[in-house]
Amino acid sequence: MRIGRFSYKEQVFTGNLSDDGKVYPLTGEIYRDIKTAPYGYPLEEVKVLAPCRPSKIVCVGLNYRDHAEELGLPVPDEPVLFLKPPTTVIGPGEAVVIPPQSKQVDFEGELAVVIRYRAKDITAEEAPYYILGYTPANDVTARDLQKKDGQWTRAKSFDTFCPLGPYIVTNVDPNNLTINTYLNGVLKQHVSTSSFIFNVYTLVSFISKVMTLLPGDVILTGTPAGVGTMLDGDKVEVEIENVGRLANPVIE
Amino acid sequence: MRIGRFSYKEQVFTGNLSDDGKVYPLTGEIYRDIKTAPYGYPLEEVKVLAPCRPSKIVCVGLNYRDHAEELGLPVPDEPVLFLKPPTTVIGPGEAVVIPPQSKQVDFEGELAVVIRYRAKDITAEEAPYYILGYTPANDVTARDLQKKDGQWTRAKSFDTFCPLGPYIVTNVDPNNLTINTYLNGVLKQHVSTSSFIFNVYTLVSFISKVMTLLPGDVILTGTPAGVGTMLDGDKVEVEIENVGRLANPVIE
Repeated sequence: MRIGRFSYKEQVFTGNLSDDGKVYPLTGEIYRDIKTAPYGYPLEEVKVLAPCRPSKIVCVGLNYRDHAEELGLPVPDEPVLFLKPPTTVIGPGEAVVIPPQSKQVDFEGELAVVIRYRAKDITAEEAPYYILGYTPANDVTARDLQKKDGQWTRAKSFDTFCPLGPYIVTNVDPNNLTINTYLNGVLKQHVSTSSFIFNVYTLVSFISKVMTLLPGDVILTGTPAGVGTMLDGDKVEVEIENVGRLANPVIE
Repeated sequence: MRIGRFSYKEQVFTGNLSDDGKVYPLTGEIYRDIKTAPYGYPLEEVKVLAPCRPSKIVCVGLNYRDHAEELGLPVPDEPVLFLKPPTTVIGPGEAVVIPPQSKQVDFEGELAVVIRYRAKDITAEEAPYYILGYTPANDVTARDLQKKDGQWTRAKSFDTFCPLGPYIVTNVDPNNLTINTYLNGVLKQHVSTSSFIFNVYTLVSFISKVMTLLPGDVILTGTPAGVGTMLDGDKVEVEIENVGRLANPVIE
């Protein structure tokens, strides 16, 4: 399935984009019941929003060896966590806004995990049951502020700094996907998630032993080497094999 | 006013604890209209919950010179921010749970600011208008994990690591309050918020220039010197002059 959030006139709803090009609203409790309504809207007639509304976005730093090396940081023996506030989330096509405080706003293409069921203290073996699916994400980072602050939160927390979407794709193997990030059509990041230091199921288990994960919560799994700076007028795209392509313009 | 969240039988509501000892439900849109219902419940008959449900908890590190010194860290020239997830919040009387991952879980008594109106790019002069009030908070921290990770997020993000309450008190000067933190009745932290490096209005302005603050969002303003470790069976209390006293037991 390709689960997204959509608006049609004044109405916002969660739905499934079917192969017939129509979006069928999900009925029942999200995401407990994944049943679709018998009617659908043509994709051209709806606006595609960010695919979920996370109560928290948990991010993993340095989950690819090559990115740790490009930042000159040691490879961690446990996942390093940080959070982005829900106010960072934007949908496909919405603009990433460069704030006046930063002169170096970087893209970081990443695979995002979306949680289906409340998860606390689960094992890596149990993790697949608790995951709804996967979507492309961009962990936008004010690199200059990240270096200045030491703590990464401010640098990662500006409004518009978490493009997500377009759809949450179910039934894919998250640990064997190719991620390509493009800036103005030029390939900048290229990696397989098979080279994760900590794989998706290990991450979900690790995080669930710290904090309760709730339906719609998002985990960003880390970025590979090749991060770079975006400028006013640029276009950034994160494309993940079998998951989708997230494109956003950049403005000042 | 003393604004809190309460449960009475199956019903959860936001209300004002009046001087007559009764809790009067607030009517209208929270916190836009602060009008009270004509009926109240005796305080003894309701359960006092955490006073708000933040979409985000923004915390400030090292906002008192003496605490920076006790950790051996330099005094910052701008506020250092981090986030705690909403799943950390517990109310007065609820237990802080020491997780198996840590051998050193510390209390940090702090003044919490609660946001009334959506705030983006506001000045320090405008900040008072956007603030609903103040409540005691405990920024519980797994000190050993904070040191190990470098990033503070995991150490601060365990479930139950953000006791808040009991009430949001309006109409106090936040920059001239005495905070006392007690462990098992023994005074451990004692400070006036007049010794903040960055005062409350400066913090709200600074944070609003990074991320949009929403009604009910919480800002923890930093802790002074005197932090210490809590053990199974302990009782921790954060008392703030004219704001209230937050007491929580600690269990393993």
